[in-house]
Amino acid sequence: MLANKNQERTSLAKLGEFGLINHLTEHFKIYCSSTQKGIGDDAAVISSSDKELLITTDLLIEGVHFDLSYMPLKHLGYKAVMVNLSDVYAMNGAAEQITVSIAVSNRFPLEALEELYAGIQLACDTYKVDLIGGDTTSSTKGMLISVTAIGKAKKEDVVYRNGAKATDLIVVSGDLGAAYLGLQVLEREKQVFQVDPKNQPDLDAYTYLIERQLKPEARKDVTELLKELEVKPTSMIDISDGLSSEIMHICSQSKLGCKIYEEKLPLDPQVIATSEEFNMDSTMIALSGGEDYELLFTVPIADFDKIKANPHLSIIGHMVEENQGMNLVTRANQEMELKAQGWNSFEE
Amino acid sequence: MLANKNQERTSLAKLGEFGLINHLTEHFKIYCSSTQKGIGDDAAVISSSDKELLITTDLLIEGVHFDLSYMPLKHLGYKAVMVNLSDVYAMNGAAEQITVSIAVSNRFPLEALEELYAGIQLACDTYKVDLIGGDTTSSTKGMLISVTAIGKAKKEDVVYRNGAKATDLIVVSGDLGAAYLGLQVLEREKQVFQVDPKNQPDLDAYTYLIERQLKPEARKDVTELLKELEVKPTSMIDISDGLSSEIMHICSQSKLGCKIYEEKLPLDPQVIATSEEFNMDSTMIALSGGEDYELLFTVPIADFDKIKANPHLSIIGHMVEENQGMNLVTRANQEMELKAQGWNSFEE
Repeated sequence: MLANKNQERTSLAKLGEFGLINHLTEHFKIYCSSTQKGIGDDAAVISSSDKELLITTDLLIEGVHFDLSYMPLKHLGYKAVMVNLSDVYAMNGAAEQITVSIAVSNRFPLEALEELYAGIQLACDTYKVDLIGGDTTSSTKGMLISVTAIGKAKKEDVVYRNGAKATDLIVVSGDLGAAYLGLQVLEREKQVFQVDPKNQPDLDAYTYLIERQLKPEARKDVTELLKELEVKPTSMIDISDGLSSEIMHICSQSKLGCKIYEEKLPLDPQVIATSEEFNMDSTMIALSGGEDYELLFTVPIADFDKIKANPHLSIIGHMVEENQGMNLVTRANQEMELKAQGWNSFEE
Repeated sequence: MLANKNQERTSLAKLGEFGLINHLTEHFKIYCSSTQKGIGDDAAVISSSDKELLITTDLLIEGVHFDLSYMPLKHLGYKAVMVNLSDVYAMNGAAEQITVSIAVSNRFPLEALEELYAGIQLACDTYKVDLIGGDTTSSTKGMLISVTAIGKAKKEDVVYRNGAKATDLIVVSGDLGAAYLGLQVLEREKQVFQVDPKNQPDLDAYTYLIERQLKPEARKDVTELLKELEVKPTSMIDISDGLSSEIMHICSQSKLGCKIYEEKLPLDPQVIATSEEFNMDSTMIALSGGEDYELLFTVPIADFDKIKANPHLSIIGHMVEENQGMNLVTRANQEMELKAQGWNSFEE
């Protein structure tokens, strides 16, 4: 977690914008045959196809979305790509291209941007997407990253948020709440470090949580798994703001309500143990934690058998008519109204 | 240029991110049949077509690219869209969609963002492009806008930077240097205002310059004109960093040199008069000023007759073999090597 203070420092001013872009992107490979022209002209060119095009964009800002005191730049680059690919997969599409715009203040040397782009490149190589453009400029304070992802899907395969039907099963991939707890652990260690810089933290009990926070993976594998299982979700969304907030988007756009069963929420053992340590309710963390980048989707009840035994998928509830509201059924079999505690970056 | 201090102020925190996006975008129209799904899902959906897709993105940062003390927010919104559409037109394409991501600190009230989005909407309405997505978040300092534009062109119509041939004519639309001088005038008035806030500036002599700086137009009309004239440029770029910098991109990518004739550079009378007032060389301003968002392109010499009498187009030189270099031929018939004095935001 500590920066090496003796590292090389090359000033960004020396390279200029075009030199910088060339330097940072020259080793990126092109994976998609649809990428006709990447970086180096006024616009990138993508070849035509008979598939629908999916476009999504996200902005990450230092001090708001990430803290460089515990977020290594390589992980930040990787995560900035993941949060966008996740949105393409949430449409049941295949991500093919990204653009990356960054602004950094002069306090960042070239070597810092090389780290950032190493993470972006690792994401591109792992997910087989092409970096096709972007913008690189200076900021007056800190770093920000704006990524746009472009994907494709056959028209009949695109899954929106508004297609759920009453009685559909609600399914979530992976497990919930770990990324949020990872952030809590990192914030705590940062404060310990500020008081006693010689203290070496023992993070063995939190490895999964920290990895989920610093190096999330977009669930490309889940969209592929659904194709193998011959399941087409009726609605889908990715979990960036927390399960409650996301299921409420599906409910409101599909004009339905839902029942989520507390006992069905998939929790990693580290989430349960660390919730207790932090005196937090693990159900609340699973519902409101955010940044899990798992896929939340609904499927017809007829698909129950295809989903039920799959270790990557959990059936956590079902849709109901709109007038029944959006509720959590607790372990004590009580119904509690779901509330979106999703993150509002504008709150002071 | 002065803000009304008594204006309404509604806190952004009250609306939250989703409420804010809805509020700001609910009055936007959809113009393009290719826009299947705009704002409101994980990604926007654009229908397939037999045309190539063009993608470009630009990042504008307060204190680096704009100064809100003389840039009204409505103009800023308009300009942020223009600089991106300009890149699509520079590929000889038709712009169809944009995404807009913004980050603002809490010092901005809702009414400020309404102004910004009024400018974005005016740009969308005027150029018939659809706002299909984006991201809205808080910043720790100031405002930034990241726009991505999506356009289309038939494969055979796309014009790159690398297609110029030796002997091709070099053509520029409109006139050069006005946007840069407009910025100089605004910067001077800002300093006068800081010394003497009661001083009311008389800007009548600079109206064209100021308009070019604050409300540039992307040259959609020029791409349409070229189609009417049955001219397909061999290479094209838009002038954002200054003529010298842009022609050097065409030269290096086409592996050629160029001759630009000083006497052929199109200058508005206000550029000539204000250059003298500022003790600056108008040729240098035309070459290095930047932000004109005119189109610079090359055409076969056989197209001379189609271009020569058009009031929107100026033939300013011709391409030559690479070993002859990139030169300006002065009024005194001397050759001077062109230098890119383009803006480097990383310089201190």
